[in-house]
Amino acid sequence: MSTGYHVAVVGATGAVGTKMIEMLERTTLPISKMTLLASKRSAGKTLVFNNQSIVIEELTADSFEGVDIALFSAGGGISKVYAPEAVKRGAVVIDNTSHFRMDPEVPLVVPEVNAHALAQHKGIIANPNCSTIQMMVALEPIRQKVGLKRLIVSTYQAVSGAGAKALAELAQESADLLAGKQPEELSPAILPAGSDKKHYPIAFNALPQIDVFAEDDYTYEEWKMINETKKIMEDDTIQVAATCVRIPVFSGHSESVYIETAEHADVAAVKQWINDAPGAVLEDDPSQQIYPQALNSVGKTETFVGRIRKDLDVANGLHLWVVSDNLLKGAAWNSVQIAEALHQQGLVHV
Amino acid sequence: MSTGYHVAVVGATGAVGTKMIEMLERTTLPISKMTLLASKRSAGKTLVFNNQSIVIEELTADSFEGVDIALFSAGGGISKVYAPEAVKRGAVVIDNTSHFRMDPEVPLVVPEVNAHALAQHKGIIANPNCSTIQMMVALEPIRQKVGLKRLIVSTYQAVSGAGAKALAELAQESADLLAGKQPEELSPAILPAGSDKKHYPIAFNALPQIDVFAEDDYTYEEWKMINETKKIMEDDTIQVAATCVRIPVFSGHSESVYIETAEHADVAAVKQWINDAPGAVLEDDPSQQIYPQALNSVGKTETFVGRIRKDLDVANGLHLWVVSDNLLKGAAWNSVQIAEALHQQGLVHV
Repeated sequence: MSTGYHVAVVGATGAVGTKMIEMLERTTLPISKMTLLASKRSAGKTLVFNNQSIVIEELTADSFEGVDIALFSAGGGISKVYAPEAVKRGAVVIDNTSHFRMDPEVPLVVPEVNAHALAQHKGIIANPNCSTIQMMVALEPIRQKVGLKRLIVSTYQAVSGAGAKALAELAQESADLLAGKQPEELSPAILPAGSDKKHYPIAFNALPQIDVFAEDDYTYEEWKMINETKKIMEDDTIQVAATCVRIPVFSGHSESVYIETAEHADVAAVKQWINDAPGAVLEDDPSQQIYPQALNSVGKTETFVGRIRKDLDVANGLHLWVVSDNLLKGAAWNSVQIAEALHQQGLVHV
Repeated sequence: MSTGYHVAVVGATGAVGTKMIEMLERTTLPISKMTLLASKRSAGKTLVFNNQSIVIEELTADSFEGVDIALFSAGGGISKVYAPEAVKRGAVVIDNTSHFRMDPEVPLVVPEVNAHALAQHKGIIANPNCSTIQMMVALEPIRQKVGLKRLIVSTYQAVSGAGAKALAELAQESADLLAGKQPEELSPAILPAGSDKKHYPIAFNALPQIDVFAEDDYTYEEWKMINETKKIMEDDTIQVAATCVRIPVFSGHSESVYIETAEHADVAAVKQWINDAPGAVLEDDPSQQIYPQALNSVGKTETFVGRIRKDLDVANGLHLWVVSDNLLKGAAWNSVQIAEALHQQGLVHV
């Protein structure tokens, strides 16, 4: 490349796609041309990138001619079909869906944790699940110092992770209940999982189901956190237990994370490691009621960590409260960071 | 007593007090007279009990003359002063505040778990913390069969636990944000803890602080869950770790509970034990998306348990999702159940 890369965003009109465009405006990656791709329905509409109006094109295999980097966020089915087509035409694909994540040929990357894995890429790099990414940013600095034996996480996930329609559903249900409607008068159609049989209200509720159910009565979201953690940290011996819950928050995932480290870690030292870690921000001062909050995380690319304290009974046990904007570090920003890392490592052209 | 007990409710106009009156309408306890007590501000107003209009009286020490059973829910300061006055006048006090809970002279009772502890009472019985109670109902049937080595709980607590003003705050903030206000334009004054220095929005947010902070950077709410669990289960060796979080739900606490049992427990057996346990309702069928939900728990006295599944790595590890109406089983209903148990055991008059 001479003056910059030709970048394409697949799913440009979606909740994550629009954030990818925003994050590409913030990146240091040199961009010479931007192509926005979506379904036929959105083709012809325009979106603004760096004050320039860009006409959305319909996604076809040939859309990728000349593209250097393609960011995908249009569902697993689209990635399955079109990511290989993009690679065939010389693009590097950064895929935000779960489709390729557990493929042993595909690096699964949180740049703060395992940017080195990019060197093995064969054209496709997977962006991990939102709730996994922020947990990795918080735990990697601890793992590097004292090792990680096990983790048990309970999530408090925002609705934006389920897309734009889910956001509208939360807003409408909230307004209806505030206006005096009864829960049984609502008509949920998206949450907990658009593709599942039953739907439940999310407004003023907590739903212990994200994505559909899979083996052993775990949801796919829970399986993602378990499997992706082991892959990203390159350690199958870490014991990972997860319970994933949707709560009535528009954006910003929170996580109650319990860990047991391999060696003892002092709380003060852990705070220092988090403070010094790339991408992580320590927000932890109980005397001043300082701790991470979902509402404060919106629009920010960092992962906020607080409520760090030792288990009172178990020697190497620690609690953490981890919050990040699920659409940014959990999706769009991590994808753009992967593109930056590929550029820095000279890995855009295979 | 001949035809029934003279019952008094202290704090009759509060969020819990009004529910106590409702629950006393559902009880089998024989009641001959009802006295409703509150602050001077509410004295003279009327409330209905069993279709009978009752004038609220101002709380004084002499209010307890002739009272057999007094249910307190007007704050720890009121209990501290007036519970001994009630006992002095021959009443048995069932106190819903935290004031007497850890007093070794005071039984701390969840009737499904330790009704036998009532026999030792010296006039005051403490009602445990809301989040502790529902967890005890869910875990006791498991503990009885296979023992309980440790538990790690993350809570998703409703706003009604912070009182009527907190409910109004959630409603107002929700409406304001839906109308387009920015979070920084809100004026939170109650949550996370009315008595604390700073206040934060709860609408579309998650606050990892319930009550004020105490030793070791744990909140009092977390300390309550830890200490009360050990006292109720009469076992100081159970390892308890807790993270307590407020979420934008009006009523109905949810809990992600991870346990390790002393002996191995089959998931199918655990489900059967929960199903057979008093006060617990099994709601657990992932294939039909059946699991407990806060919104469904409102107005019900049972504790709902689901998402029961084994840890994939740790032999005796189990996950549960536990939901109950925090104002009922978590407060008013448990207090009334204690009164019923005292009656059944012939312990109302000491």
